[in-house]
Amino acid sequence: MALPLANRYDGIRRIAPTDITTRGGAVHGHLATSLLIRIRSRAHATLQQQMYRGIRRAILTGAAVPGTRLPSSRALADDLGVSRTTAVLALEQLAAEGYLASRRGAGTFVADDLPDDFPSVPGRGRTRTGRHPGPPTQPPLSRRGAALATAPEGAERLAGPPRAFRIGTPGLDLFPIALWQRLITRRLRSATAAQLDYGDPAGLRALREAIAGHVQMARGTQCSADQVVVVGGAQQGLDLICRMLLDPGERAWMEEPGYPGARSALLGAGARIVPVRVDAEGLDVGAGARRAGDARLVYLTPSHQYPLGVPMSLRRRLALLRWAGSARAWIIEDDYDSEFRYGTRPIPCLHGLDAGGRVIYVGSFSKTLFPALRLGFLIAPAGLQERLVAGRRVADQHPPALDQAALADFILDGHFARHLRRMRTAYRERLDALAAAVERYCGDALRLRPVRTGLHAVAELAGADAVKVSREAARRGLEVTPLTAYYAQRARAVNGLVLGFAAVRPDVLARGAERLAGAIDAARRS
Amino acid sequence: MALPLANRYDGIRRIAPTDITTRGGAVHGHLATSLLIRIRSRAHATLQQQMYRGIRRAILTGAAVPGTRLPSSRALADDLGVSRTTAVLALEQLAAEGYLASRRGAGTFVADDLPDDFPSVPGRGRTRTGRHPGPPTQPPLSRRGAALATAPEGAERLAGPPRAFRIGTPGLDLFPIALWQRLITRRLRSATAAQLDYGDPAGLRALREAIAGHVQMARGTQCSADQVVVVGGAQQGLDLICRMLLDPGERAWMEEPGYPGARSALLGAGARIVPVRVDAEGLDVGAGARRAGDARLVYLTPSHQYPLGVPMSLRRRLALLRWAGSARAWIIEDDYDSEFRYGTRPIPCLHGLDAGGRVIYVGSFSKTLFPALRLGFLIAPAGLQERLVAGRRVADQHPPALDQAALADFILDGHFARHLRRMRTAYRERLDALAAAVERYCGDALRLRPVRTGLHAVAELAGADAVKVSREAARRGLEVTPLTAYYAQRARAVNGLVLGFAAVRPDVLARGAERLAGAIDAARRS
Repeated sequence: MALPLANRYDGIRRIAPTDITTRGGAVHGHLATSLLIRIRSRAHATLQQQMYRGIRRAILTGAAVPGTRLPSSRALADDLGVSRTTAVLALEQLAAEGYLASRRGAGTFVADDLPDDFPSVPGRGRTRTGRHPGPPTQPPLSRRGAALATAPEGAERLAGPPRAFRIGTPGLDLFPIALWQRLITRRLRSATAAQLDYGDPAGLRALREAIAGHVQMARGTQCSADQVVVVGGAQQGLDLICRMLLDPGERAWMEEPGYPGARSALLGAGARIVPVRVDAEGLDVGAGARRAGDARLVYLTPSHQYPLGVPMSLRRRLALLRWAGSARAWIIEDDYDSEFRYGTRPIPCLHGLDAGGRVIYVGSFSKTLFPALRLGFLIAPAGLQERLVAGRRVADQHPPALDQAALADFILDGHFARHLRRMRTAYRERLDALAAAVERYCGDALRLRPVRTGLHAVAELAGADAVKVSREAARRGLEVTPLTAYYAQRARAVNGLVLGFAAVRPDVLARGAERLAGAIDAARRS
Repeated sequence: MALPLANRYDGIRRIAPTDITTRGGAVHGHLATSLLIRIRSRAHATLQQQMYRGIRRAILTGAAVPGTRLPSSRALADDLGVSRTTAVLALEQLAAEGYLASRRGAGTFVADDLPDDFPSVPGRGRTRTGRHPGPPTQPPLSRRGAALATAPEGAERLAGPPRAFRIGTPGLDLFPIALWQRLITRRLRSATAAQLDYGDPAGLRALREAIAGHVQMARGTQCSADQVVVVGGAQQGLDLICRMLLDPGERAWMEEPGYPGARSALLGAGARIVPVRVDAEGLDVGAGARRAGDARLVYLTPSHQYPLGVPMSLRRRLALLRWAGSARAWIIEDDYDSEFRYGTRPIPCLHGLDAGGRVIYVGSFSKTLFPALRLGFLIAPAGLQERLVAGRRVADQHPPALDQAALADFILDGHFARHLRRMRTAYRERLDALAAAVERYCGDALRLRPVRTGLHAVAELAGADAVKVSREAARRGLEVTPLTAYYAQRARAVNGLVLGFAAVRPDVLARGAERLAGAIDAARRS
């Protein structure tokens, strides 16, 4: 069973799925992967409280279903790095509150009758999509709330300083922070009362114009500032689009494998996700049309498929647009890192090919500038922008004005284009360093697929399981994600790893490849 | 019919509702209020395009239903300040595309058969909640998308420099911008790669601790940083809560009159809003329980009812908590401006009285610092915070890191407390100036209700209609909102105005009151 090991906080420990067994032969292992216990030594809560809350949360969110057997207190204590007494006290508290039941000789189980004493209200019962109760005295979440609260985290990034081979993080060591500070300072010094007040929900006009200019030049699509919506990062854009365009129960195509953040946004909107296979030409449009011809929306990454890296062929792009035209479906084109190409010519973006007004282009500044900025943008087809803006006004009014103004200056003064050129060269060096080191240290065990675009590589493993390798790599201070983490149907995944090469220096990548070779060896022996 | 005149952009003109009549006697006037045409002289589009788009949008969003008669091209041209030729060309384009139909001698009407040629798909038809089609070639919005896109704007604020009597904007002329710039610069200079990377979806730990400390001291509620969620402004908090806790069709109480932003968030979540009357003790809990005892959520502003200004009595607070406990309902406590009190002692916030874990406290930095910062916070009851955080991660990951860090410093270094003290004195002066000027210039025509908290006053009108006065005031460069704008049932509104006194200097308020007296005179005569 595939378990993504990339955790989001330092010091998180997961109860390994093999530690969870169930009574009576029922297999609940697919839920156990989210049974998280977060033990943080510097946290506000005591270790016992953290353990108590972690297990209770797993029960309340349905991650641990009634009848699930818990590991022994000794095994839990070892696994979480707490004392046996701490573990026993936490388990006793949960038993006293009715969350756990012990059976002599058989161990401790999640109780069959959870302390959930509220009367069942017609139409509010547990549904197929899962309406999870909160703590016993609290009302439940909404159905979409439960879906959002339990959305798969997929391959999330770690906190802390970037390490080899973090995905989704650009080379922050090379960001021109002094220049950025000058731009921010200049804008703050000249700020008027009107600029400190509420602003345009579509985003600052100057920034929208700068974005439209950049995208027209870089991506070859005609668009005006009136089609742009500045969002608080691409994730907000995806969430907004899904909410505005999808009703619960409607079907949406999603690349298989695909980006977990988009999967969460679709689930949050109540969509039924239809995984559509990706081959050497990108999303298989014919397969999608056969599986779900009535889909309302398609999410895809045509410039650089996430995570496999293939660009979608022009033939497929045109087929997708034709299909969307006849099926009356929307298309989300997530163009998350196409600014970084290594020697290839760009294929026109879907938005530029779209005559029918179906494609919403999603761009991010997290990869081109830095993620903590939280800015991205949408380019909507004519007729949709102002409706998206109306929704975004309800969602959060608008992004912070100062960052928008500084970013507009950054683009309009030419810094953005210069920064992209500089980063392209740096990333090319980092990619070369990764390729050389993988060849040197990992030999035949790891084969890097060619990289033409973007900030990460896909590497196929031979003779070792990617999930095991990822776990061994994490023990060695590396951040490596198995391809399984991106699949809805994990059994179909290629046995491989996703390796980011943008976040750290070439020498760090080289040392990382050496340690990765050790991780592969260890996984082979285990 | 009540028409809020406070527009959001300079130069927006609305077609007055009296200009819209319907054929066959059917009254569609309630839709006509949103029939907006935005004419901006410096806009990207030509005047003709703007007019074409404005009318088309009104038709496509359902604001102008089939059969609605349009004013003559001459009347439209006059009203919008465009040439007759421009108006005729825009109308002709709409007629050519099938949006309008002309009947000799009878005028121009919204066409009965709109150019909307898509086959009706089962389960996707127009529903009672309104699924509005987009431009003819595009698929429709989702039901919630349509609700969001057509959410009432209520009394929205204008762009441009603050004028008398803008609501919802603090005294931005007094914000210590040089100090803020120093804090931002310090944080940028010391920024590490990890700080530029993705951050904690709950918000920066240091800021959450600073917020918890401030709220405990200022609002008398026990809370820890683990209960805080930093959000991109209170509006995002409201939207997140509504999504996570309300399923479509569930009922929610809302104060009548109440805050339009909350109304939009509730509508966006698909809630059925139950307006509950407000009296001298605040929200009438008994009336709510009788009207909708099965409600899932209550939204209210207990510290300083928005917009009427009354604080909720302790008796009512306790009754609400008792009711919510037995009805298993959530409570949103929107505490948008309680930091500014003039000589009264605070009543404990609902969150501090809540033993049952039902109250989610919503705080804003838009009134205490500045709106363009886009930061606010939630304080969730134990057990709910991490579920809200999981939802917010899907919504937009987290707020920008730099602003969060600077705000944490602002609070922890004591600047926040000093700024609040300073602003309280300044607002007291501005309030006194408003009261004196209203008495001097408006006499018996306008009676200010006592103000004990916050940044706006409510003034009752005698002998003139509030909607007319607002319109006359807008012509005189004032921003005045009739109370009707806050009511779901406008016929029940008190004849009065909401006057912000925080945004501009005392002398500007005094001159504004003089011009307001002129507006009242003009409205009386009309």
